[in-house]
Amino acid sequence: MTTQHPDPARRRFGVNYVPSGGWFYSWLDFNADAVRRDFEDLAGLGLDHVRVFPIWPWIQPNRSLIRRRGIDELLELIDIAGEFDLDVAVDLLQGHLSSYDFLPSWVLTWHRRSLFTDPAVREGITRYVDRVSRAVASRSNVFAITLGNEVNNLWPANPTDAEESARWAGDLLRTVATAAPYVLGLYSLYDAAWYDPEHPFHPADAADLGHLTTVHSWVFNGVSALDGPLGPATVSHADYLVELAAATSTDPARPVWLQEIGAPRPDVPDADAPAFVRRTLDHVLTNPALSGVTWWCSHDLDRSLADFPDREYDLGLFTVDHRRKPLAAELAAVIGEQRAAPLTGGRVLAADRPGLVCEVDLRERPDRRAEVAPGSAFHTTWVRLRASGPLAIVPATRAADPDYLAARGIAGLVG
Amino acid sequence: MTTQHPDPARRRFGVNYVPSGGWFYSWLDFNADAVRRDFEDLAGLGLDHVRVFPIWPWIQPNRSLIRRRGIDELLELIDIAGEFDLDVAVDLLQGHLSSYDFLPSWVLTWHRRSLFTDPAVREGITRYVDRVSRAVASRSNVFAITLGNEVNNLWPANPTDAEESARWAGDLLRTVATAAPYVLGLYSLYDAAWYDPEHPFHPADAADLGHLTTVHSWVFNGVSALDGPLGPATVSHADYLVELAAATSTDPARPVWLQEIGAPRPDVPDADAPAFVRRTLDHVLTNPALSGVTWWCSHDLDRSLADFPDREYDLGLFTVDHRRKPLAAELAAVIGEQRAAPLTGGRVLAADRPGLVCEVDLRERPDRRAEVAPGSAFHTTWVRLRASGPLAIVPATRAADPDYLAARGIAGLVG
Repeated sequence: MTTQHPDPARRRFGVNYVPSGGWFYSWLDFNADAVRRDFEDLAGLGLDHVRVFPIWPWIQPNRSLIRRRGIDELLELIDIAGEFDLDVAVDLLQGHLSSYDFLPSWVLTWHRRSLFTDPAVREGITRYVDRVSRAVASRSNVFAITLGNEVNNLWPANPTDAEESARWAGDLLRTVATAAPYVLGLYSLYDAAWYDPEHPFHPADAADLGHLTTVHSWVFNGVSALDGPLGPATVSHADYLVELAAATSTDPARPVWLQEIGAPRPDVPDADAPAFVRRTLDHVLTNPALSGVTWWCSHDLDRSLADFPDREYDLGLFTVDHRRKPLAAELAAVIGEQRAAPLTGGRVLAADRPGLVCEVDLRERPDRRAEVAPGSAFHTTWVRLRASGPLAIVPATRAADPDYLAARGIAGLVG
Repeated sequence: MTTQHPDPARRRFGVNYVPSGGWFYSWLDFNADAVRRDFEDLAGLGLDHVRVFPIWPWIQPNRSLIRRRGIDELLELIDIAGEFDLDVAVDLLQGHLSSYDFLPSWVLTWHRRSLFTDPAVREGITRYVDRVSRAVASRSNVFAITLGNEVNNLWPANPTDAEESARWAGDLLRTVATAAPYVLGLYSLYDAAWYDPEHPFHPADAADLGHLTTVHSWVFNGVSALDGPLGPATVSHADYLVELAAATSTDPARPVWLQEIGAPRPDVPDADAPAFVRRTLDHVLTNPALSGVTWWCSHDLDRSLADFPDREYDLGLFTVDHRRKPLAAELAAVIGEQRAAPLTGGRVLAADRPGLVCEVDLRERPDRRAEVAPGSAFHTTWVRLRASGPLAIVPATRAADPDYLAARGIAGLVG
């Protein structure tokens, strides 16, 4: 069977880079040696890339001022990644990181206006996206540009509706495509876009906009509450989101990047973290739509930094003093196995897996998103059947289309 | 007559320092030579000080992180001022500048909490105030520390009430006093505190808190609309505010610092700016309560920077390319005259001026502030009588107190 699915031998494995010293505040005191020391940790894991997060308002403090040094420091960080043979994915509009929103004074208080809808703000953001995209595209190890990390977290502080959000993202992705034509241009949303019926960012946008679909799998969204740190709902959640994303695309071969997956306390206690890594990857690596996995995150957060949600402090593969944690060793082991036998090993692609028909049309009925959310009847059935092996999700509208099913590697339907 | 009024021979003349290149965004790319070049402009005017404005969230990006380099750069700027024999007043919590509020992500959106009332935020601010105050007090040319520029502009984005605002400022001023015992500790409010009956920052706080009272005189608040750029209400407004402040203090000799006065377009056209400077200073320099004048501001704002209110662009004594504007020459001339003959020149102190009785008790009845606002009957009467010479404001509660009147240099009552 021939599909355009991502080549499993070229799947990407990477981490979301969180600086070990001073978190993202360290951009204000950029230190190339500190970055080098952090990337040295990562290079030992067999990763091929890092995803990096400049802080938007520090680079563009005024709508019309884009700081050259801010961009230069980002480029320097990209070059340091290159020293370790790491490719780089750049997120532009941070924006949202680990509960904190970084917003410039030109969209706050006396200048309050929605970054999704205000024409002047959009003009300013467009210039930022253009300028930073052009700059980073000059580096051969940059492979992807995402508009910003989970930009839907910038709502409701910035009002929008589904139509405006879609236009905002579509317009900015065209800007990226023009500025960086040989780089993937991507959109990133947290999973309210998939599960919350009222959320003004829709599944169809996630599945249509950009060169591939990104998903962020966080088990504190409800699945870990269903069956604990290593239960089937928990360790299959990344695979479930990849399936939902694949099923929502009109293109049966559209790749899906698991752009964030992490082992958050207390949902996943430290003792269970290595098993969580292996079982989660065991599930998702069978998925033919999967183009790559990027772990959240590289380094723990120094507990001297205040007010983060508690789970954010210990998400690193490394401690702040560069000790490799057990889950990092497990991740490295899985990557090693996968690279050694991408097609024939224990995690062969399930190219002839069955599919579970989903009556909810996420493209047309985003108001029905609760029916596929963690704990819904559909999710519960999928998790139960997934225990027997890889299981696709098939939209009812495509269930009678043999070409579609073949293109997605689906051999028969259940449910 | 003996009073403790400020020694007119030691009155301070200075400017509010607005960097000529990149406005306050230039803190993100601190350049000592650029600061030096700006201060070189100022030194030629006969000024003795600059008031400077670090950007709070860039120094304290996390509640528990105060950046050493941010403080070091502030100290370097203070030292550069010293090279030009300029003393320095430091404002801490910016906070508000020229319509923009700079607020850290730890008081925004998902971490939204009022900086006036939230205990954790107040703890963080207290540490910032302590740390920066200690640092700048190590420099012998620092003479004043203000909590922040017009912190009442941070409301209503940060909810407060009059009691909370007073406690907030009082507590922080105690922190400054402990950290910097030999420096003036000050509070700064824009004039809604004097004129707006609903405003949750009260005249009594302005008149009681800190070592002296600061006032900011901006004629776009209504007075220029009464009688134009050089009309009596306009050019006497600074003096009026100094009198209101003096009259509101329980201490008849409490000094008042005209911490901001500027010639904003279009209220004051360029052609009238020099006359506005001279006439405004002619009025206010007769006031025995006046301890100093700090012009807003040193340098124009580059028009390439977006979204400022139009009047903010041309407030400088110098253009962005360092040309001295006519109003700067006039300011220098007035300062020269004043320094040459502080007691005996054309602007002798009006130590025996009459006083106009004000029936509104601003200390006890802040709800009646509208009755002293620009255009009110009281203000109109004061402006009319002020045309004949210096005129104090005397609260009705003190009108029968000869010691009080003598201490304020008031010879008789009118009205």
